[in-house]
Amino acid sequence: VRRPNSEAPGSAGGRPGPGDEFALIARLRARFEAIDAGTLTPGDLGIGDDAAVVTLPGTGRAVLATDLVVEGVHVDLAFSTPGDVGWKSLMVAASDLAAMGAGVSYALLSVAAPEGFPVELLGVGVAEAASVLGCAVVGGDLSGSPVLVVSVTVVGSEPDDGAPLLRRGGARPGDHLVVTGPLGASAAGLRLLHARTADAAHPPGPGPVGEAPAPEVAHRRPVARVADGAVARRAGASAAIDVSDGLVADVVHLAEASGVGLALEMGDDVVAPGASRHEALAGGEDYELVLATSDLAGLSDAFSAAGLRTPLVIGRCTGDAGERTLEGGPLPEGGFRHRF
Amino acid sequence: VRRPNSEAPGSAGGRPGPGDEFALIARLRARFEAIDAGTLTPGDLGIGDDAAVVTLPGTGRAVLATDLVVEGVHVDLAFSTPGDVGWKSLMVAASDLAAMGAGVSYALLSVAAPEGFPVELLGVGVAEAASVLGCAVVGGDLSGSPVLVVSVTVVGSEPDDGAPLLRRGGARPGDHLVVTGPLGASAAGLRLLHARTADAAHPPGPGPVGEAPAPEVAHRRPVARVADGAVARRAGASAAIDVSDGLVADVVHLAEASGVGLALEMGDDVVAPGASRHEALAGGEDYELVLATSDLAGLSDAFSAAGLRTPLVIGRCTGDAGERTLEGGPLPEGGFRHRF
Repeated sequence: VRRPNSEAPGSAGGRPGPGDEFALIARLRARFEAIDAGTLTPGDLGIGDDAAVVTLPGTGRAVLATDLVVEGVHVDLAFSTPGDVGWKSLMVAASDLAAMGAGVSYALLSVAAPEGFPVELLGVGVAEAASVLGCAVVGGDLSGSPVLVVSVTVVGSEPDDGAPLLRRGGARPGDHLVVTGPLGASAAGLRLLHARTADAAHPPGPGPVGEAPAPEVAHRRPVARVADGAVARRAGASAAIDVSDGLVADVVHLAEASGVGLALEMGDDVVAPGASRHEALAGGEDYELVLATSDLAGLSDAFSAAGLRTPLVIGRCTGDAGERTLEGGPLPEGGFRHRF
Repeated sequence: VRRPNSEAPGSAGGRPGPGDEFALIARLRARFEAIDAGTLTPGDLGIGDDAAVVTLPGTGRAVLATDLVVEGVHVDLAFSTPGDVGWKSLMVAASDLAAMGAGVSYALLSVAAPEGFPVELLGVGVAEAASVLGCAVVGGDLSGSPVLVVSVTVVGSEPDDGAPLLRRGGARPGDHLVVTGPLGASAAGLRLLHARTADAAHPPGPGPVGEAPAPEVAHRRPVARVADGAVARRAGASAAIDVSDGLVADVVHLAEASGVGLALEMGDDVVAPGASRHEALAGGEDYELVLATSDLAGLSDAFSAAGLRTPLVIGRCTGDAGERTLEGGPLPEGGFRHRF
């Protein structure tokens, strides 16, 4: 709840006028409320006051995560529509809750955008993702900025079914490592988008996502694996992390947190159609989950019973915490992360 | 949990290397954990996994708000240190919860910053504000960006003392309107900072905040009135909003939400030392609370009993929802807001 400081030198200046801004906020609010109506508990308070007030089911403990999407760093507007950016901003934050085995109940959306950027179209993408996730967008903030920065905070709640949330550090020597789906599609999609832009015979930029090839959709509209995380949690998985930085980087994070070694064996089934093996190992942004489990058959049965894809085996955890191997050789380098 | 897309054209590029970044995150984490140790419930999970898991006391309903602070829009780095920006980013979000009569239990911090920006110093300011508020910083995200953008989400919980949270829309005709402290100091401080920068005899830029004059401190280090909001809520105040956009703009928001008229009478006691009457009316960013109450004496007694400053009367709510007067004349224009 702040007034932009229009007196300060270096002001971004190009904000829409107050009238435009009120109208924009009203339109965004209407879009989100259409979804929230089916999600908020009666008596809860969504958008429109100083803060939202929301019911947390389950134990009442809140599960919280936040993620930034920055133009030129995490998204390229030559390859993603404003709606894609909105969708991705919510899904990448939701993926953090999926990796705990928690669902997403509520989201807050902040958008700092240059003058003329179609914030409402970004909001449509957020609303589409919220609809898929079944979460309510209950607050946010808007500002001018020379570059598009989107910040999404997601709030879930700890289930009271007795199965603990999934941590990164719970894997034990001997545990199987699996991934919830094939990898590399997002990186392959970005590669295809680059190639198309370089080809003068094709129109530049992203078209309607509904007509795009599968890897391009994977890049532009990633899906948080919330159901997979919840099933894995109930099936007693020992640890989980989402594949955001790249499989190698993320599985190393899991191993470091767990104090275990890694002996990876990655079959071709783990490489997404159209992707290279390198893209599957290091591409990142697939938002599949890496899971550790001592009961591979039990986990697979639980996924099958839930109508989910069969988890793909990628190796084992070992007792030598210094071990990092792929097919018996050294694990390639890959990725890094910003989160804290 | 995402990998910056270093392949994309238009990449901001100037991110610190992975090693620097891990070290920065470790230092930030250590600073926040020093505070969090006294705040988190045993068994809760702060920084370090895919998401935080936190206990919400009281009814278990969560109170949520988020705010953006953008360089050149909300802060000017010529007039605020990185620590000031961190402090302000948390306090302006906390002010939204204060305006509900809720406390701040947890915060998530995201920073998109240009290469070379001292993110750790910003984190020190956040930690200082968190220490004052008694809240834990339990997660966040970092990214490169051409311009500094800070996003803070705050999480409080609905108290179970039976006194409802304060809404904007609860004021009734006849209610007294008060403000929790004098206004205009932040605007006056910004004016003084501008003047000093234009004076070649003085060093430019912000010095140590501890040696700065009071209006400058008010501008650089605003304080969310959390205790005032909680006392007002328990004392049965009917409505509240924080003064962020400017008194006139914010009290109009309260009146619109409540469907009441405004007959304001603003004495000189409402003008902060060093501020002009215009700065008090329209300056904004003071983060005092405007409260409505049918029981002025009861509210004042409750503030006195809590050791808080006596609320300052600024007028009444009226039954003519179209009425907007100051000292019997038309209310001046002022401010607008971005939040939704």
